Amino acid sequence: MDGMTVFLTNSNQHINIGKEKPSRNGFVYVKNPHLDLMEEDILYHLDLGTKTHNLPAMFGDIKFVCVGGSPNRMKAFAEFMQKELGHEGEDNDVKDICPGTDRYSMYKHGMGIPSISIMLHELIKLLHHAKCCDVTIIRIGTSGGLGVEPGSVVITDVAVDSFFKPQFEQVILDRVVTRSTELDQDLASELLECSRGIKDFPALMGHTMCTYDFYEGQGRLDGALCCFSNEKKLEYLKRAYNAGVRNIEMESTVFAAMCRLCGLKAAVVCVTLLNRLEGDQIKASHEVLAEYQRRPQQLIATLIKKRLELINDKELLDNAVV
Amino acid sequence: MDGMTVFLTNSNQHINIGKEKPSRNGFVYVKNPHLDLMEEDILYHLDLGTKTHNLPAMFGDIKFVCVGGSPNRMKAFAEFMQKELGHEGEDNDVKDICPGTDRYSMYKHGMGIPSISIMLHELIKLLHHAKCCDVTIIRIGTSGGLGVEPGSVVITDVAVDSFFKPQFEQVILDRVVTRSTELDQDLASELLECSRGIKDFPALMGHTMCTYDFYEGQGRLDGALCCFSNEKKLEYLKRAYNAGVRNIEMESTVFAAMCRLCGLKAAVVCVTLLNRLEGDQIKASHEVLAEYQRRPQQLIATLIKKRLELINDKELLDNAVV
Repeated sequence: MDGMTVFLTNSNQHINIGKEKPSRNGFVYVKNPHLDLMEEDILYHLDLGTKTHNLPAMFGDIKFVCVGGSPNRMKAFAEFMQKELGHEGEDNDVKDICPGTDRYSMYKHGMGIPSISIMLHELIKLLHHAKCCDVTIIRIGTSGGLGVEPGSVVITDVAVDSFFKPQFEQVILDRVVTRSTELDQDLASELLECSRGIKDFPALMGHTMCTYDFYEGQGRLDGALCCFSNEKKLEYLKRAYNAGVRNIEMESTVFAAMCRLCGLKAAVVCVTLLNRLEGDQIKASHEVLAEYQRRPQQLIATLIKKRLELINDKELLDNAVV
Repeated sequence: MDGMTVFLTNSNQHINIGKEKPSRNGFVYVKNPHLDLMEEDILYHLDLGTKTHNLPAMFGDIKFVCVGGSPNRMKAFAEFMQKELGHEGEDNDVKDICPGTDRYSMYKHGMGIPSISIMLHELIKLLHHAKCCDVTIIRIGTSGGLGVEPGSVVITDVAVDSFFKPQFEQVILDRVVTRSTELDQDLASELLECSRGIKDFPALMGHTMCTYDFYEGQGRLDGALCCFSNEKKLEYLKRAYNAGVRNIEMESTVFAAMCRLCGLKAAVVCVTLLNRLEGDQIKASHEVLAEYQRRPQQLIATLIKKRLELINDKELLDNAVV
């Protein structure tokens, strides 16, 4: 809850099927005609630049990007992935997951739409400058659940705003532009399918509501300011539930909108820490919460391993044909 | 730019004039009838609780709270304040600025309205539970300047939104409530007066525009997404200038609105890192930027020292009369 981390995992060149030139559609693209005219682009918050770093050599083969909420959680995730992908023996220090590059990079950001939006602008420019293609990006995080057991993993089909609409309102200069917040349906289904292969893994698909505020905006009764009754709160949360919302967090709409516009296949996978129909404060022990937070990581690891196996199968098949 | 830090400075009991009970008006209050009914209030992001900590004993004498954008910057500020207040020899470790309590505390948050809002809810509850009174709260930070020299310190008279309105729109459940973003005018004037006593200190009073987004919302041409021309950008920024805006950042409206509602005397003091009428990317060297970022700290130190001297003068006077 105290930072925002980017984990860039190179889940191997194996994933780039064959040697053919990827289709134009597979590239990560920016929608900004001004960028080509810039002599240098400094990615200020990432501490990288187009003149100072060879971005295609450093990052061009990236296929998976995971964005998460807490540096500690993401470090644990990196270590977990290393183990899962069988790189454990090769290198014990997660910082050197790909020596000589910043393959595992931590960028501290905070919670909320403005914070993740800054990171995404620069991350998308990085993937663009690095000429990455066929990139899958997954936000993993924590959330408040709605009518589901604490510890459930919600795979988002669509991110909605406080009014349950599948849209994000972006202020551009002083104009308000409405953007779609639909996520990649195939990827969401693939994730749900993966979850079914994990033993005792409570996962479901549902809408994720994204708010600008943790307290008044999410109907919490325990902030410094609160002007509504418990009844009004429950009435609102039940309306959200009936609209299909299964969890509430603070980043998904802008994440979905920006990734969609820039050609990234995007998913949001958040575990719920409590059931908001039953309270506002998190009561579970640190141990239980830690176990909950490992669940989205487990799901992503399963997805990446499945994709790697698919590739390996295909390679075996290709070799058999030859 | 990579975190949000809270620096709680106890600028001494001396500030609490005499022994009389402070007026009801001086107390920090929450506007939430539910809080009194809670058996325990856990300030989750601050790692404090009403049952686990004696908050009045730990924090009850706080008169100044400084909120800033970066842990490193705030650590430097704490060290600087120690030196300025003559506590340097007593204790070299800033962590022990008031041993046995977390007088100097770092809470990592990120940029933007949602992030500072979470911190403020819990900070205001802390000050309330601790029965603090006559608290001054100052946000110090960095910003983009508008028609002013880079390095200028802008003391905010009023925070405005992207439409130059002095208001903050708070979504409460699914209702939009408009709150005033006026700041304490006496405090702003006192800060401007203080700035005049510092040699070669470029300070001015002006409106501060607060946006939800660093790129499209602030008219930057260098994001991953940009659909407007340089002319449109400049037209917007000049309109902002003509409306009285002298700098742009991402936290001031919610900060002003919440502090005002809860009886805190609040100010915003941000240095400008560039003139947005001349560009989007920050070009100054790290050394120059570091010097710029010390300026708001210098101003706050001057204010606190001036207030301490005033108290000491009054004590001398009282003693003389007796």
